[in-house]
Amino acid sequence: MPELRRDPVIGRWVIISSNRGKRPIDFQVHQEMPQGGTCPFCPGFEDKTPPEILAYYPAGREKNKSGWWVRVIPNKFPALEIEGELDRTGEGMYDKMNGLGAHEVIIETPEHGQHLHELAQQKMEDVIWSWRDRILDLKKDDRLEYIMIFKNHGSAAGASISHPHSQLIAMPMVPIRVKQEGDGSKNYYGYKERCVYCDIIHQEMAQMQRIVANNKDFIAITPFASRFPFETWIMPHRHSSEFQDIQKTEVANLAGLLKLVLAKHHFVLDNPPFNLILHTAPLKTSRLPHYHWYIEIIPKLTRLAGFEQGTGFYINPTPPEDAAKFLRDANAP
Amino acid sequence: MPELRRDPVIGRWVIISSNRGKRPIDFQVHQEMPQGGTCPFCPGFEDKTPPEILAYYPAGREKNKSGWWVRVIPNKFPALEIEGELDRTGEGMYDKMNGLGAHEVIIETPEHGQHLHELAQQKMEDVIWSWRDRILDLKKDDRLEYIMIFKNHGSAAGASISHPHSQLIAMPMVPIRVKQEGDGSKNYYGYKERCVYCDIIHQEMAQMQRIVANNKDFIAITPFASRFPFETWIMPHRHSSEFQDIQKTEVANLAGLLKLVLAKHHFVLDNPPFNLILHTAPLKTSRLPHYHWYIEIIPKLTRLAGFEQGTGFYINPTPPEDAAKFLRDANAP
Repeated sequence: MPELRRDPVIGRWVIISSNRGKRPIDFQVHQEMPQGGTCPFCPGFEDKTPPEILAYYPAGREKNKSGWWVRVIPNKFPALEIEGELDRTGEGMYDKMNGLGAHEVIIETPEHGQHLHELAQQKMEDVIWSWRDRILDLKKDDRLEYIMIFKNHGSAAGASISHPHSQLIAMPMVPIRVKQEGDGSKNYYGYKERCVYCDIIHQEMAQMQRIVANNKDFIAITPFASRFPFETWIMPHRHSSEFQDIQKTEVANLAGLLKLVLAKHHFVLDNPPFNLILHTAPLKTSRLPHYHWYIEIIPKLTRLAGFEQGTGFYINPTPPEDAAKFLRDANAP
Repeated sequence: MPELRRDPVIGRWVIISSNRGKRPIDFQVHQEMPQGGTCPFCPGFEDKTPPEILAYYPAGREKNKSGWWVRVIPNKFPALEIEGELDRTGEGMYDKMNGLGAHEVIIETPEHGQHLHELAQQKMEDVIWSWRDRILDLKKDDRLEYIMIFKNHGSAAGASISHPHSQLIAMPMVPIRVKQEGDGSKNYYGYKERCVYCDIIHQEMAQMQRIVANNKDFIAITPFASRFPFETWIMPHRHSSEFQDIQKTEVANLAGLLKLVLAKHHFVLDNPPFNLILHTAPLKTSRLPHYHWYIEIIPKLTRLAGFEQGTGFYINPTPPEDAAKFLRDANAP
């Protein structure tokens, strides 16, 4: 079973996963799966994956057969596992616990070569609904503290299978960045009695310099202190700390804006590798006045992120005002 | 002039540098400088770099000519600049300041193709002395709060010139990871009245599972909650919060251990790209009882670090006990 270990200085939890490649010889450069053919995420190969947890499909389709348009399966090489006891223990001064949790794959489309932004509006909405359905289901498990939904596109961004998919990791602790956002926004709220993210949206709407796109329910901006070139956040106008509180019309507007932003990135940056991360409140909280969920999209354009990772110290060569203008001006086809 | 911007939620400062590549078209894959020939860091090409700030050389050598064995120059494309006013201002709810600071390059050897671990003992010591000399000099500037010394080796780790060099960035604020380490270790000290890093060393010496190498003054370990495979820390046995307090015999023992650890990485991982980062206390502190300087070495083996960067959530496929054993057992030639 994987193990969760806590850094004794910073308090950051790390998954030590021995299910995965681990000897020096295993660190070869990964090849992307060849297009088509033997991809286990393609229709017709449903028996090559663990049995599905959820799928959207027309009436009459048999489970684990083709015909679906969104399909959720357990990760074959999970970073965390759902069976077992939580069992938190010490090892001298160190803390650790069992790597209990869940690791799922959301196959976003049956079409191997399709990009997420190319999904039809309705299908994009269904990807968002599938994220929400899985969160609501896993939230029932009291051992879990946080659910992270993310997408790696392109091998440089960490994708090992090119068929469009996102991932979900449910974990028994709150990751450090989420904790920092919680603490930071709580401090701000304590001082101002306002949500810092709502204030960001107001200022961006007033300044008009870092807006990429906007609709009734969502705004896409390049944040003031962007760490990466073309880093983009999609934020709901309505204050809400939990993604799973999203309303039906909001899902439609999120799908539209997400398609638009990803199409602009694709067009301006020539199909960049990217990471998409859903930031939402920890599971055992509810309607926090200080926190505000959002989606972060980070194109992987520079390799210069080596030491930044170790230090939290970033050098961004593209001012977000310039990035926003490039994206705003792009008429993605 | 570059600009420093503060994230309003987390408090992380970011350098927005418009000296560097910035339009979408500028993000091409960088090529490494070809071996030999036109490398500006090679002897004989001293006029291709800004004038030197410091160099170690035999008597009789002329400044900015060949003959040196360590040479420090300003970075030609600095992330921060030494001229100008500090000028901290707001922009609505956001904070920013001028990108005041220094960005220097330490050329570690005149030999273009040499690896750092191949330096003779004396020459390796001189690289360490040059780091210290530059810190002591820059520390006089009251506008500066922190000096970060780091090395990127290999293009996958962010090096754009392959000639062996490290870098120094002096900045007018404390980076977030350093702040977190300061806060975390202070909390621990408040509770235990002991340095958390000293406790780590004691436990590692007792458990013997994560030691890579050890000598009278320094220990090399793979930390308990390693984020990356083969991540290695080199820590002084003697409690000291500031690297620049290092004593003469300690420099010799650090040079020896650094050569050994890098040789082991080179041998076991087949010349991996890596980042080396010196963690030391902020400039305006002195002899902190809770902080302890150390050197972190992170081989860049996986590309899976995309979303980890955004979340602070790491999955490490190699238990540090295994990594330490591989490194300990390796007889680097």
